[in-house]
Amino acid sequence: MNIGLDMMGGDFAPLEAVKGLHTYLAQSAQPANIFCIGDEGHVKNLLLDHKVPTSDIKIVHAGQVIDMHEQATKAFKEKPDSSIAVGFHMLASGKIDGFISAGNTGAMLVGALYSIKAIAGVQRPAIASIVPKMNGSTGILLDVGLNADCKPENLNQFGLLGSLYARNVFDIENPKVGLLNVGEEEGKGNILTQAAFQSLKENRDINFIGNIEGRDVFQDKADVMVCEGFTGNIVLKLAESLFDAAKQLSIDNNFLHRFNYENVGGTPVLGVAKPVVIGHGISSGNAFFNMIRLAEKMIFSNLCGEITEKFRP
Amino acid sequence: MNIGLDMMGGDFAPLEAVKGLHTYLAQSAQPANIFCIGDEGHVKNLLLDHKVPTSDIKIVHAGQVIDMHEQATKAFKEKPDSSIAVGFHMLASGKIDGFISAGNTGAMLVGALYSIKAIAGVQRPAIASIVPKMNGSTGILLDVGLNADCKPENLNQFGLLGSLYARNVFDIENPKVGLLNVGEEEGKGNILTQAAFQSLKENRDINFIGNIEGRDVFQDKADVMVCEGFTGNIVLKLAESLFDAAKQLSIDNNFLHRFNYENVGGTPVLGVAKPVVIGHGISSGNAFFNMIRLAEKMIFSNLCGEITEKFRP
Repeated sequence: MNIGLDMMGGDFAPLEAVKGLHTYLAQSAQPANIFCIGDEGHVKNLLLDHKVPTSDIKIVHAGQVIDMHEQATKAFKEKPDSSIAVGFHMLASGKIDGFISAGNTGAMLVGALYSIKAIAGVQRPAIASIVPKMNGSTGILLDVGLNADCKPENLNQFGLLGSLYARNVFDIENPKVGLLNVGEEEGKGNILTQAAFQSLKENRDINFIGNIEGRDVFQDKADVMVCEGFTGNIVLKLAESLFDAAKQLSIDNNFLHRFNYENVGGTPVLGVAKPVVIGHGISSGNAFFNMIRLAEKMIFSNLCGEITEKFRP
Repeated sequence: MNIGLDMMGGDFAPLEAVKGLHTYLAQSAQPANIFCIGDEGHVKNLLLDHKVPTSDIKIVHAGQVIDMHEQATKAFKEKPDSSIAVGFHMLASGKIDGFISAGNTGAMLVGALYSIKAIAGVQRPAIASIVPKMNGSTGILLDVGLNADCKPENLNQFGLLGSLYARNVFDIENPKVGLLNVGEEEGKGNILTQAAFQSLKENRDINFIGNIEGRDVFQDKADVMVCEGFTGNIVLKLAESLFDAAKQLSIDNNFLHRFNYENVGGTPVLGVAKPVVIGHGISSGNAFFNMIRLAEKMIFSNLCGEITEKFRP
């Protein structure tokens, strides 16, 4: 198994990527082959400094970097030697089986959607956030930002994409799918959710349990929570802010610790043909460690293959 | 000043309304005249039990009650002697200057929109929630559920309705208005918020500060936070669930206590011609106390008159 890791992405690049890689190699009995993509000299020195066993990894030189604030489409086109462009080139040509970056999110999406492309039958790929549940389990919320405007059928497809992700990566058998809405009863909601409810209800490939409300997000009512990317993004960022709030208030609590987005392992781009994982700019070493594990699990469980199978038109 | 209080509304009626009234009378130097609307015998006995000085209040008998789960429009029409219908009749005819109920929300909205009616120029009345801010101040989020689908101009009007509410009731001079969105920069968002941004930017009657994100909801970036009722309702219910979560986790904290919706003093229906306050079904005595104070402040500050003035077509 070959995984490409962008060493130049994130606010603390390449240090935190190196730390995450170190943890991953130390904790894995059979680690994947990691291709470290970035400035060769800089990366090699840091790997040596951190005593990362370089025999287990390969460094792929990329002489350019796409900055966090560059216009994504333009930068992706005009910087073919950037770590992100090199990574997608390797992924598209089969040299790696999955690609991870905490770099420019827009450029990662451009690469995922235009270089890797959506799986046939998937109308709109989505990004998903994990949501800590009060009972200790993990839920999935999608879309959290890729599709600010959606059609009912998009939400229906998110139900299936999220279900396959929950089963393959989080080992949730028969995940409960809930439609995020403003009331529990069928018929509640805006024009979009009223129509999406009908599609989800008729979808035989998922375990649809009906509407859920804002108060159910942290409860275990649904494992997969479906919404358009506008609401999802607001809920995600609000939830992330709770961790900062807890820190400010000196509240030390395990549940709130699980909101620490510095540690969260990024989001896959669900519905594109190969495993792509996008990290938060603020990703810590622990986040990089979790992203490598996420990519590993996506590849190992053949998530993209299963999505391809289920969405075959 | 005459305020009508529905004694039969809420999960613990009429007990919690009596407790709230008792606190209000005890704490007010110059209390308003309170008209207690409900079953006369039942209410009178409870008032005596709780040593509420009945000289300061008037009991208005209403022989019917609209239950929490009744179909609102039908019940409002078919139960003219219900406490809610009697209250709106008194409000419409000028016998009271404001009306409060924690009863059937739908029936309260029917009364507000069809018996009291929207102020000329207000396209869509809205309901607003108060949002505790980390710095101790109070923000306002609207709409939180009345309008699941909105047009850009509706959001623009919510900016002005919320500003007048913030100034008149919460004494916030020149309140900062933020548009709840998925990015900070102009141009971000879904079709609705992209268009609403332009209207808000051109609105000379408000202090528009631009987009805010989910992470800004509990920060003091904006005093008035504008969104359609779908997103607002999900954010509100999610925020309310934080208080339950904190209780479950045995986290005792002043900031989280401010999320205790049992104590929150209801929401006004902003944009209708007279003060109407709707309470949570679960309202405690303290919530009723806060609702009476809210109605008092709305009447005293002439909020509806100012809205009428500002929206005059």
